[in-house]
Amino acid sequence: MTVEDCKTLTAVHFEQFKKIVGEQFVLADEEQLKNYGHDETENLLYLPQVVIKPRTAEEISAIFRICNEHTIPVTPRGAGTGLSGGALPQFGGVLISMERMNSIVEIDERNLQVVTEPGVITEVLQNAVKEKGLFYPPDPSSRGSCFIGGNIAENSGGPKAVKYGVVKDYVLNLQVVLPTGDIIWTGANVLKNSTGYNLTQLMIGSEGTLGIVTKIVLKLLPHPKYELLMLVPFNSLEKAGEAVSAIFRAGFTTSALELVEIDALRIVSAHLNDNTIPIKDGVEAHLLIEVDGNHLDTLMNEMEAIANLLTGFDCGEIYFADDEQQKATLWRLRRRVAEIVKLEGYSIEEDTVVPRAELPALIRGVKALGRQYQFQSVCYGHAGDGNLHIRIKKEGSIYSLNNPAIVPALKAIFELVFSLGGTISGEHGIGLLQKEFLDIVFTDTNMQLMKGIKKVFDPNNILNRGKIFDL
Amino acid sequence: MTVEDCKTLTAVHFEQFKKIVGEQFVLADEEQLKNYGHDETENLLYLPQVVIKPRTAEEISAIFRICNEHTIPVTPRGAGTGLSGGALPQFGGVLISMERMNSIVEIDERNLQVVTEPGVITEVLQNAVKEKGLFYPPDPSSRGSCFIGGNIAENSGGPKAVKYGVVKDYVLNLQVVLPTGDIIWTGANVLKNSTGYNLTQLMIGSEGTLGIVTKIVLKLLPHPKYELLMLVPFNSLEKAGEAVSAIFRAGFTTSALELVEIDALRIVSAHLNDNTIPIKDGVEAHLLIEVDGNHLDTLMNEMEAIANLLTGFDCGEIYFADDEQQKATLWRLRRRVAEIVKLEGYSIEEDTVVPRAELPALIRGVKALGRQYQFQSVCYGHAGDGNLHIRIKKEGSIYSLNNPAIVPALKAIFELVFSLGGTISGEHGIGLLQKEFLDIVFTDTNMQLMKGIKKVFDPNNILNRGKIFDL
Repeated sequence: MTVEDCKTLTAVHFEQFKKIVGEQFVLADEEQLKNYGHDETENLLYLPQVVIKPRTAEEISAIFRICNEHTIPVTPRGAGTGLSGGALPQFGGVLISMERMNSIVEIDERNLQVVTEPGVITEVLQNAVKEKGLFYPPDPSSRGSCFIGGNIAENSGGPKAVKYGVVKDYVLNLQVVLPTGDIIWTGANVLKNSTGYNLTQLMIGSEGTLGIVTKIVLKLLPHPKYELLMLVPFNSLEKAGEAVSAIFRAGFTTSALELVEIDALRIVSAHLNDNTIPIKDGVEAHLLIEVDGNHLDTLMNEMEAIANLLTGFDCGEIYFADDEQQKATLWRLRRRVAEIVKLEGYSIEEDTVVPRAELPALIRGVKALGRQYQFQSVCYGHAGDGNLHIRIKKEGSIYSLNNPAIVPALKAIFELVFSLGGTISGEHGIGLLQKEFLDIVFTDTNMQLMKGIKKVFDPNNILNRGKIFDL
Repeated sequence: MTVEDCKTLTAVHFEQFKKIVGEQFVLADEEQLKNYGHDETENLLYLPQVVIKPRTAEEISAIFRICNEHTIPVTPRGAGTGLSGGALPQFGGVLISMERMNSIVEIDERNLQVVTEPGVITEVLQNAVKEKGLFYPPDPSSRGSCFIGGNIAENSGGPKAVKYGVVKDYVLNLQVVLPTGDIIWTGANVLKNSTGYNLTQLMIGSEGTLGIVTKIVLKLLPHPKYELLMLVPFNSLEKAGEAVSAIFRAGFTTSALELVEIDALRIVSAHLNDNTIPIKDGVEAHLLIEVDGNHLDTLMNEMEAIANLLTGFDCGEIYFADDEQQKATLWRLRRRVAEIVKLEGYSIEEDTVVPRAELPALIRGVKALGRQYQFQSVCYGHAGDGNLHIRIKKEGSIYSLNNPAIVPALKAIFELVFSLGGTISGEHGIGLLQKEFLDIVFTDTNMQLMKGIKKVFDPNNILNRGKIFDL
């Protein structure tokens, strides 16, 4: 189907939508449309024709039945914090905002599960279950504003993933409205399931292209009692990468193992006017290392043992966060990197991931490509997972899709990543931005399988059309 | 496509197969065919027309190209330890035995990963990585004989799943030969991946209906240093179930939490002539509880705290396994339950799974249904996961597909499971045996999605036809 096949909305459609969700939840004036036309991805803007804010799965189903019949593009949107353009309504049409589906339905303390709607802010959900002594670990940097539904769409990770895994490791069951209007549950609220194809896992990370998730059942853990945090400076970025691998090979399981290149820290510290971390000459990067558990003595010993190990990697004086406030400061510095370095012109973020031990080779390679293609870069991210975010700045080059000034450099980075056994997105998704690089990591057969699956779920290609791939 | 569309093999096909894999790896005499016509599921027997033992993905690809062109059914087979009939060649044709693809390709100590072929016995793989201090946790009871490839096909679990998760939580990447003959890798060897649809997870648990897995990349963990094990008798089966839930709600994470009903223990002890566990009057069930970790003192304290908690659930005298031999004895008693109670006429095994806290209700319900439908049952399994195996014996009733003497009882069990929020297979798969019950847990829409996916991967429906569902 081509773009030309998309039908334009008429006054009749608008009336139908208003009837379904109520007049005040159908928005169409330009200022409102603009609010929903961008996300955190570069400076892209695409206006939908209408924004609809449904409250229930049944309302979404009714909207889908109209759009599917008339081949009207539908774009689902969470909080708009995405970094790959997944929520941008590239083909106009209907934008469905999930903001009103924001209830935590049930915290099941007997089974250590939570049932939630997708429009709940991730941190709100985490805090709600924490009050019951329970723990939902996946914590993207944007957790204070992103929606749990968006986390499902992108299979988000975050710092805790290194010990606790990513979103896909916590989702037991999903209620999904399909583009045809049918409503299904993908699985069951159980910890083990070998009953038919794993539609739950297929939905996770499918970037809103297969259906709209309307209820989510998550597995929870008992919340660990203690967390200890330290920040370790390294005189060599590569040595920091090597230290990451060494920590795991020594048998330690950290609950966070984050890397921040010195330029990122410098920019963030200056922007926040926060000098908690002295920036010493010669330091190239820091590792932020957390351990958690229920036995403080054990954790203290573990921290000490890790610190001892790190002295073999040319590290500087280690900063131990002594109280909750110091921990919060360190985490704030880390969590705000992406947002703040973007303000400094590092506008392009790539979400590379490689086998953990290849991190030094990736960092080395990116710096070499920077010299070759004349871009500056800052690297940071979830080093324990081999998940390195690379923010790029190139003078005179504002990113746009197919921009010839930057695409060859990005292609070279992704080819490097692939050659190291990695892939092009660890937790941000492909969306609009990485589409053109997908053939680096996938064969034609892979692509045909994915497109075939898309057609099974969305025969008229109305849902989040043009994301991940074109049909 | 109907069974009638299946083409029969001709002498020409046999010659082609011999050319591909070598004459000695194409078997067709009746005794040989019989060896490959059954698995551990009831007493079912289906003869293939030919058994082929390929050594490489490329050989399988060549076989597929012939079979796909001529619509010849292909059934993949691991070690034949399955309990749902997934490896049975119901429509004859070609059976591909994976037994020669049995190399561990690489243990990557830098990245804590292993690359293996599918025909490696699970325990062999576990021991090989353990020698390097590494840990692959999923451990089905049949781990001494089953293949890792079969574990992927069924998304197997085992006792350790309660702490460490199931097979799906360890698979990073798969090489797969599709029924069309194309060879793909489903993902990348990385810990986080948000690059396209999750074909890796779609393959896991698809019971050999979407492709044949030829290489497997698994995530490994550092091997925990210590394991402590205790066996706890309960005077009430239901109280045992309640105790399971209480352990988790108190914040303990056990590395195994197994339930064995007293009849099962009685049968196994007698069969093995092993009186390690005294069977006391009034005891209805035992819990086998393991904790593991790197700090012995912490584990001892944890065991003691769990033991204290259990006194509130009318438990008897706790047996602590003091050394490796005692632990091995307890685990042998547990692991051999299925096989031995089957010999005693409990020939039908159902692999139910419910949210953990519903376990007492499930046990109570199954016993009530036994009175109603006049069957005897023994229950055992992975209580910590809510995964209860129910073995059934009904006088004069030998199980067969569609046997009217037993099907209504099974249907009633599965309806109970579904009403408790559970599903009909936790780790054994649907295969041939549970097909007719799938509509209890899935809507027509779910079924249509699964069938649609099947057609994308296997347009001519040649691969493991008739498993999970009929097209």
